[in-house]
Amino acid sequence: MTFQQRIRTVQQKSNSLLCIGLDTDAKLLPRHLGRSADAVLSFNRRIIDATHDLACAYKLNLAFYESLGEKGWRVMEKTLEHIPRGVITVGDGKRGDIGNTAERYAQALFSELGFDAVTVNPYMGYDSVEPFLRDKSKGVFLLALTSNPGSKDFQRLNVGSRPLYERVVQTAVKWNTKKNIGLVVGATHPRELQRVRTLAPDMPILIPGIGKQGGDLKSAVQYGCAKKGYLAVINASRSIIYASRGKDFAQAARQEAMKLREEINRHR
Amino acid sequence: MTFQQRIRTVQQKSNSLLCIGLDTDAKLLPRHLGRSADAVLSFNRRIIDATHDLACAYKLNLAFYESLGEKGWRVMEKTLEHIPRGVITVGDGKRGDIGNTAERYAQALFSELGFDAVTVNPYMGYDSVEPFLRDKSKGVFLLALTSNPGSKDFQRLNVGSRPLYERVVQTAVKWNTKKNIGLVVGATHPRELQRVRTLAPDMPILIPGIGKQGGDLKSAVQYGCAKKGYLAVINASRSIIYASRGKDFAQAARQEAMKLREEINRHR
Repeated sequence: MTFQQRIRTVQQKSNSLLCIGLDTDAKLLPRHLGRSADAVLSFNRRIIDATHDLACAYKLNLAFYESLGEKGWRVMEKTLEHIPRGVITVGDGKRGDIGNTAERYAQALFSELGFDAVTVNPYMGYDSVEPFLRDKSKGVFLLALTSNPGSKDFQRLNVGSRPLYERVVQTAVKWNTKKNIGLVVGATHPRELQRVRTLAPDMPILIPGIGKQGGDLKSAVQYGCAKKGYLAVINASRSIIYASRGKDFAQAARQEAMKLREEINRHR
Repeated sequence: MTFQQRIRTVQQKSNSLLCIGLDTDAKLLPRHLGRSADAVLSFNRRIIDATHDLACAYKLNLAFYESLGEKGWRVMEKTLEHIPRGVITVGDGKRGDIGNTAERYAQALFSELGFDAVTVNPYMGYDSVEPFLRDKSKGVFLLALTSNPGSKDFQRLNVGSRPLYERVVQTAVKWNTKKNIGLVVGATHPRELQRVRTLAPDMPILIPGIGKQGGDLKSAVQYGCAKKGYLAVINASRSIIYASRGKDFAQAARQEAMKLREEINRHR
């Protein structure tokens, strides 16, 4: 099964386009858990237990685990083991390096840790992306137009008559012979998201930036979905995992995830 | 002292522009060491003991350590502790992410691991770079024109009348208010290196790609140096650390490093 088919299958089964971002910050954990690396793992496990039937994917932001030092790797590994097999796991590290190094990253993320997909930065070109594409069942979300203010600095510069991020999208479409490439487009750019969906009609699009970053959910869903209402992967992190900082945090995360899934489904 | 001054100081003191890349691959270690994570650490320590008076910097390619799994972090930490304080350490991870995530990476690489400098991918723009720039003594090498074939896919596209990588260089010059930004330009692009040096006359330039990747050393030195023959940081990895795979590997690395330092100095 290609990565594209896997995404569609899990979205259909879970009736959900929601991706829950496990950007777990030890400093923001409910007080009673403490602030250790083990506390991060316990927190993640309880969030996963409470939400796994509501999400098509979990995205782990690698920076949050690396900043835990040497224990971070183990926390990530144990967190991944806890996520049911059918749900897609995304290693959000935005890696990108020359061929022999990209191979290492692919090995670390896909083989050692076992992620189903990763985010990759396109700046270094084909040989930096190709090592992540060898297994058709494993996915690459290539950064196109990111949700942050700095996306204007280079991504929106015109290359010929079109912005650079469109060139990235068109190039990704060419590279997508195994149907395992997706794109990252921030919800903070609704018109551009619509344009990207036109250029890449059947690619999964990972859409961060709703909630705290100010992206509009309705347009993220309407413009991000491929035909029949699939292949948009709507990420929410802080609004779900920190819905409550009391002892009811897991239950509160479930409520929030349920609400968001329903709201997404209303717009599909 | 700014990062720029630190580079100049160590280059003067060591009379060396050489950066030794510790891209240590457990599979390529001398047989008698074995292939464990501990063997990687012993290997690194012996290479450092044999070469630290010949180099201005060591560059650790993070992918090689991440692919060791949870032990990788510790190997990296212990390797860094072994490098004498005066020599610059570069964490080559080519990170780049939105502001709050970039802060995490900066914390992990600068505060937890203690690197003096990191490589950063510019694609996500200012807020993805700024968290790495807060301490003027810590450096950021921003990817401009990389040494790999894929550098043509996006970096060389024309933005207006100039290629994207030149725009990155000009933008880096504007961002460089604390004198702690450097650039990465592959030795495989000598004419472009010359042009970048004109645009950024006083920035450190990290130059990979000599040796196995085919870059020419003479032009890397001549075009890469700022006035008075400093601020080019010439990286060599495999040609030094795998100079011999026998028991004499450390001595062979020293010979190779000495030869390369002298060859570089002849061209300055």
